[in-house]
Amino acid sequence: MPIADSGIEDLQARYAELVVRVGVNVQPGQEVVIRGLVEHAPVARAIARQAYLAGARRVTVEYDDLHVQHAAAELGPEDWLGRTPEHVLAGIRGWVESKPAVIRLTGNPEPQLFADLDPTRVARLDPKDQAAVRLPLLAANVVTWTVAAAPNPGWARVILGEPDLPSLWRAVAAATRLDETDPVAAWRAHVARLQTRASTLERYGFDAIRFRGTGTDLTVGLLGGCRWLGGSQTSSSGIDFVPNLPTEEVFTSPDRRRAEGTVRVSYPFVVPGSNAFVRGLQLRLAGGRVVEVTADEGAEAIREQLASEPNAAHLGEVALVDGSSRVRGTGLVFRDTLFDENAGSHIAYGQAFPGALDASAGKNAHDLLALGLNVASLHTDMVIGGPEVNVDGLDRSGQPTPIIRDDTWVLP
Amino acid sequence: MPIADSGIEDLQARYAELVVRVGVNVQPGQEVVIRGLVEHAPVARAIARQAYLAGARRVTVEYDDLHVQHAAAELGPEDWLGRTPEHVLAGIRGWVESKPAVIRLTGNPEPQLFADLDPTRVARLDPKDQAAVRLPLLAANVVTWTVAAAPNPGWARVILGEPDLPSLWRAVAAATRLDETDPVAAWRAHVARLQTRASTLERYGFDAIRFRGTGTDLTVGLLGGCRWLGGSQTSSSGIDFVPNLPTEEVFTSPDRRRAEGTVRVSYPFVVPGSNAFVRGLQLRLAGGRVVEVTADEGAEAIREQLASEPNAAHLGEVALVDGSSRVRGTGLVFRDTLFDENAGSHIAYGQAFPGALDASAGKNAHDLLALGLNVASLHTDMVIGGPEVNVDGLDRSGQPTPIIRDDTWVLP
Repeated sequence: MPIADSGIEDLQARYAELVVRVGVNVQPGQEVVIRGLVEHAPVARAIARQAYLAGARRVTVEYDDLHVQHAAAELGPEDWLGRTPEHVLAGIRGWVESKPAVIRLTGNPEPQLFADLDPTRVARLDPKDQAAVRLPLLAANVVTWTVAAAPNPGWARVILGEPDLPSLWRAVAAATRLDETDPVAAWRAHVARLQTRASTLERYGFDAIRFRGTGTDLTVGLLGGCRWLGGSQTSSSGIDFVPNLPTEEVFTSPDRRRAEGTVRVSYPFVVPGSNAFVRGLQLRLAGGRVVEVTADEGAEAIREQLASEPNAAHLGEVALVDGSSRVRGTGLVFRDTLFDENAGSHIAYGQAFPGALDASAGKNAHDLLALGLNVASLHTDMVIGGPEVNVDGLDRSGQPTPIIRDDTWVLP
Repeated sequence: MPIADSGIEDLQARYAELVVRVGVNVQPGQEVVIRGLVEHAPVARAIARQAYLAGARRVTVEYDDLHVQHAAAELGPEDWLGRTPEHVLAGIRGWVESKPAVIRLTGNPEPQLFADLDPTRVARLDPKDQAAVRLPLLAANVVTWTVAAAPNPGWARVILGEPDLPSLWRAVAAATRLDETDPVAAWRAHVARLQTRASTLERYGFDAIRFRGTGTDLTVGLLGGCRWLGGSQTSSSGIDFVPNLPTEEVFTSPDRRRAEGTVRVSYPFVVPGSNAFVRGLQLRLAGGRVVEVTADEGAEAIREQLASEPNAAHLGEVALVDGSSRVRGTGLVFRDTLFDENAGSHIAYGQAFPGALDASAGKNAHDLLALGLNVASLHTDMVIGGPEVNVDGLDRSGQPTPIIRDDTWVLP
């Protein structure tokens, strides 16, 4: 279907159906929770409609408002910033019983909104109490969940220089395969391809992954028996879901104690939480940790995150993406992790995925750290792959096997 | 201050300050909860800002979305319509401890949105479970609370025939005294005037109120020792607040067993809940109940409400308003009870105000009914006063004392 001919409402409905059928895979009688910003309302409404069509028993949309948060950061008492009402935390805890499909919408309509305020106060807006309750449930796949895009005029202005919502929708549509005749079927095929890559990597059982290219020579140690994930996951109730729409990666969590080398981050990106824009970032890693940071723009935001808690600087993720990425194909920097991390292979410092190690089941933070999986309240992705970066798998003796060559997946 | 020269943002900020300082009278360190629709975001944001300026410790905005509700009514399973998540109910119950300032925003951007759906299913959207928890806390003034307007383009279209937001804001500004040099001071004086009227009525201790005009001859029995309320109320923690902005009325809850006569409703209005528009309504009352309904438009919506529960048809309110009403002065029908009930003297069938009788403190529904105060899950106001309707207070022997003559308050 030629995207150029599709109106916003049509693309919105197609994307909403994808989010419901493939993203969270709503089951008849299931509860659905949508979290987004007031500016995401058109997409939230389209998703709510598709969710009811899929048999949801109730759809709840929880809208946040950046301007209300701005007022808090500007004028509110500091010790109340980022504190979530108790009943809201209780609602999230209740997911253990109600097992809803949870959809989070992204696409920041005003990334510069907080630029006039004290960054320390802005950073305190981050509701860590809420993340502490929600993230473990997502990480353990107690619920089905997905992160999806909600194109809006403000976000279009950030990416394209003008509030050109139709163009942004066309880019999102290209990145999410809405141009296929049957996007749901196209996604099932895409997910199968990613799963094949993941099981191939597991079969090889590499001891480390090495990235080499201009300014980059980084070796990331892997945990014995680690799982490679990609495309879909399965909830604890046995429902398959796709946690990101789009997704182009296969990924695992590395050994938090082993990462050595230097790396040039290939694409600019936005730091989750602070919304700082980072460009020309270079890192040095030693003993599994980021130990040196330089950048053309945004280095300070990275350094602040790395220093914010004891385990922040350890790696929580390594992910492989080749040049066939639909996100890369758009040629855009979306200034949104959901898209930008899929432009190429990437690493993240911060929280690991417990699902990357079967032995992690039911373990607390202390035990996860002992297993070699990182634990932190943040997770920041950055793309280190690209046309000039080759990727190898290393066995225990350091012997390399090519995984990505000339931007193409080559591991048989 | 000449309203004609004021921009929307300026009027919005002035109104927001009024809502915070006079409406809920936010105290330093108090929690603030704002409830509204996604379309109310500009006003909610302005209020949040003013609340933080007044010392609020945290402002939470809970946005509803009519389009999500529409999807539920159209496609959702019937037994889940209008059911509120348990943690949301728990949050409202928590008001007993946290004693927040609660602000509800009104101004329907799309009153015809549900017109394409089965009215029975639309009626089921009404979250009675939530009202059952919230309304007693409001009625007992456990929290400070106010209902305020959130002008939006859709509401402007309904009132003015086009989405002329500046004109709607000017009308709201006129109705809420934002044209005064110091609106907060003007409101304090206005509230004092209403309180004088209320205490005068209490001093007379009338046994009944009689309305007489073209098509109207209605006598509403009062309870011995009833309180007349108006302007401000005082919360159980001793904080004065103004529950409606605007408000022009002094009101009480009548003896639910005594109302006799016929009445012509002077102004068209919208039925809360169903959003049905009612025009040319005439009622006959006997034994305290509405027993006959005719109308040029909307009679069926009234009949449905009256039949929906055993006590619905008994009166819960009688209120007195003269021609000095700022709402009347706008010459507009706002299609919103917050405004339209203030166009003139009015009655309401449904829930009474427990605050109208000191003896009601701590009483349950059964005891309130025995005292003569009505108990119901709805409350529908309708204006029966106007330039041609005279209002008298009657003593036990039926002797009249003029209260309103020629649209002017005359009770000394």
